[in-house]
Amino acid sequence: MSSTAVAPPACLRRPLVVPRRFMFGPGPSNVPPRILEAGANPILGHMHPEIFEIMSDIKSGIQYLFQTKNSMTLALTGTGHTAMECAIFNAVEAGESVLTAVNGIWGERAADMAERIGARVNTIVAPPGGCFSLEEIEKALSKHRPVLFFLTHGESSTGVLHPLDGIGDLCHKYNCLFLVDSVASMGGAPLCMDKQGIDILYTGSQKVLNAPPGTAPISFSDRACQKIFNRKTKPVSFFLDLSWLANYWGCDGKPSRVYHHTGPISAFYSLRESLCILAEEVGDHNWSFVLARLPTVTTIVAPPGYDWKEITAYIMKTYNLEISGGLGPSVGLVLRVGLMGCNSSKANVDMVLTALKNALKHCHKSRV
Amino acid sequence: MSSTAVAPPACLRRPLVVPRRFMFGPGPSNVPPRILEAGANPILGHMHPEIFEIMSDIKSGIQYLFQTKNSMTLALTGTGHTAMECAIFNAVEAGESVLTAVNGIWGERAADMAERIGARVNTIVAPPGGCFSLEEIEKALSKHRPVLFFLTHGESSTGVLHPLDGIGDLCHKYNCLFLVDSVASMGGAPLCMDKQGIDILYTGSQKVLNAPPGTAPISFSDRACQKIFNRKTKPVSFFLDLSWLANYWGCDGKPSRVYHHTGPISAFYSLRESLCILAEEVGDHNWSFVLARLPTVTTIVAPPGYDWKEITAYIMKTYNLEISGGLGPSVGLVLRVGLMGCNSSKANVDMVLTALKNALKHCHKSRV
Repeated sequence: MSSTAVAPPACLRRPLVVPRRFMFGPGPSNVPPRILEAGANPILGHMHPEIFEIMSDIKSGIQYLFQTKNSMTLALTGTGHTAMECAIFNAVEAGESVLTAVNGIWGERAADMAERIGARVNTIVAPPGGCFSLEEIEKALSKHRPVLFFLTHGESSTGVLHPLDGIGDLCHKYNCLFLVDSVASMGGAPLCMDKQGIDILYTGSQKVLNAPPGTAPISFSDRACQKIFNRKTKPVSFFLDLSWLANYWGCDGKPSRVYHHTGPISAFYSLRESLCILAEEVGDHNWSFVLARLPTVTTIVAPPGYDWKEITAYIMKTYNLEISGGLGPSVGLVLRVGLMGCNSSKANVDMVLTALKNALKHCHKSRV
Repeated sequence: MSSTAVAPPACLRRPLVVPRRFMFGPGPSNVPPRILEAGANPILGHMHPEIFEIMSDIKSGIQYLFQTKNSMTLALTGTGHTAMECAIFNAVEAGESVLTAVNGIWGERAADMAERIGARVNTIVAPPGGCFSLEEIEKALSKHRPVLFFLTHGESSTGVLHPLDGIGDLCHKYNCLFLVDSVASMGGAPLCMDKQGIDILYTGSQKVLNAPPGTAPISFSDRACQKIFNRKTKPVSFFLDLSWLANYWGCDGKPSRVYHHTGPISAFYSLRESLCILAEEVGDHNWSFVLARLPTVTTIVAPPGYDWKEITAYIMKTYNLEISGGLGPSVGLVLRVGLMGCNSSKANVDMVLTALKNALKHCHKSRV
């Protein structure tokens, strides 16, 4: 440049070096070579027919993953938080009542998002690790008459898998939409969107799906669309406006698509590949067992007397293996081990157990 | 699943097939193998020290690209539209006055975004292809007293490169922040953020940088930060809240980083690689020439009597080469040829000219 006030940075002369790690925290999980390779395919245009076909395949894969026939099913450009905002931004107008179930960090964040757009937010609160009974939920629905009820299926900060049966019916009795965050649970614990009466459901690409972070599958029931497409005001976000997204994803039945934003083409390739693997492998799984804990992320009480940070650092240094500490209400209280998708094998469980055993031997037990 | 209401979709049994194309439209551009390979590296955690170092390298690369010393410099998870919303969401509070310059599609979209969050929006409008004089801009600043003035540097829908000199000073005279969209121009036309008094500047990864779409470099001046961090209300978006983003990107000087969202790790790898190439290659470029047209995207008047769609379809079919039609105000009026980053070579210009010449020979001239 003619007056280069800022010179080319020396740090960019170093080549990119990425170590290999066992990603056994709460996510992102390891991405198998097959998915990484898919993501390295050449770029196509965001409006090319081949991309529309890939988006259509992704839509079918999400419908299978979510067990839904909703035509309003797509993948957002962004992460689980993008999907959380997309759901709230579209389903709620300023001044409307929203109810969120807070038993960890995600309910708090959903409440924060709804407050930012001017909703009247009420919460039901359980201690970290706790769940909500149908009675508690009905009482709050009856009292606050929300248009939207938010619940986290897999609370990855506390390791709780929340039961879902019956809640959708309760919500609909009170003319409320049922919004479920399944970022940490989807594909690793039973969930059937249509059967369980869920109106808006989303997840992330980087957990059980084993794809890189950057896309977020989401689906809307007809009931949700009915409310969303009869809003009096525009959603605060153009980028997340469902009427635009629905058109870009070919979900609105219109004959042609209008340019909205440039989809993350490489991430579409890898997300499609992860859904291919899911369709091949999970086809005959049987979920007929009862769970109370989140199978994808296991919380382990931090061993008394040890500094948890020393344990996770020792395991990272010695085994190139990530397990993580707590998050939100569980900071300092737990270790979190995530085994998702391709990572959930007996060999990996054994590896984590060996690592933990040796960490207890080698780390200082300074505080008693 | 125990009751598989939705069966694994047959379309996901087909392997992913991605054709190779010459991406000579207004973007995304072709991504060189080196950048694609960087993106295929194994995943690391979004809070691993190696990722923080990669993010720091990206920050330095953007400072060089933008010619800025702003410490509040980072890459958003999303596209140019995400950056447009991030700028407006953070810099503007409901009820405040915003001025946007509309001479194509981007000013219209910025106005729409500002209206959605309750700003009082005024526009200055030039015919598609037109520019704004300093006098016009000052008159509007003086009349509407906006807190933010939006201008597009490279109007890719009309092929205009808007002059920037002097506008920053004018804005500051009226205590207004100067926001510039350089998605289509950055790296392909001279722009010096600090010298030109730009307060918020953003671009996309998929244009001149030749990285896949999905990240958006953005930078904020101290003046912009001063306003943003003294807001009375929270921005409508948690995901795009600059106080959270600043911490995740290590721009706020705090000793530790709090989990905000999961960064798009693979896209960070490829963005870093694209900035490496930029630092290697553009280091001694000389911008000392005057431009009135956008050098990255050339608009060509659609030849009278031809159906432009037939021309672009013929070229795609015959040469596997994308050039595109108009956008927004230029739909039906122009063809758009984008040659960005690795694509801007004499050989590629010749290829496009040959393709256009043969298209004129082979396509029907039905309407006269």
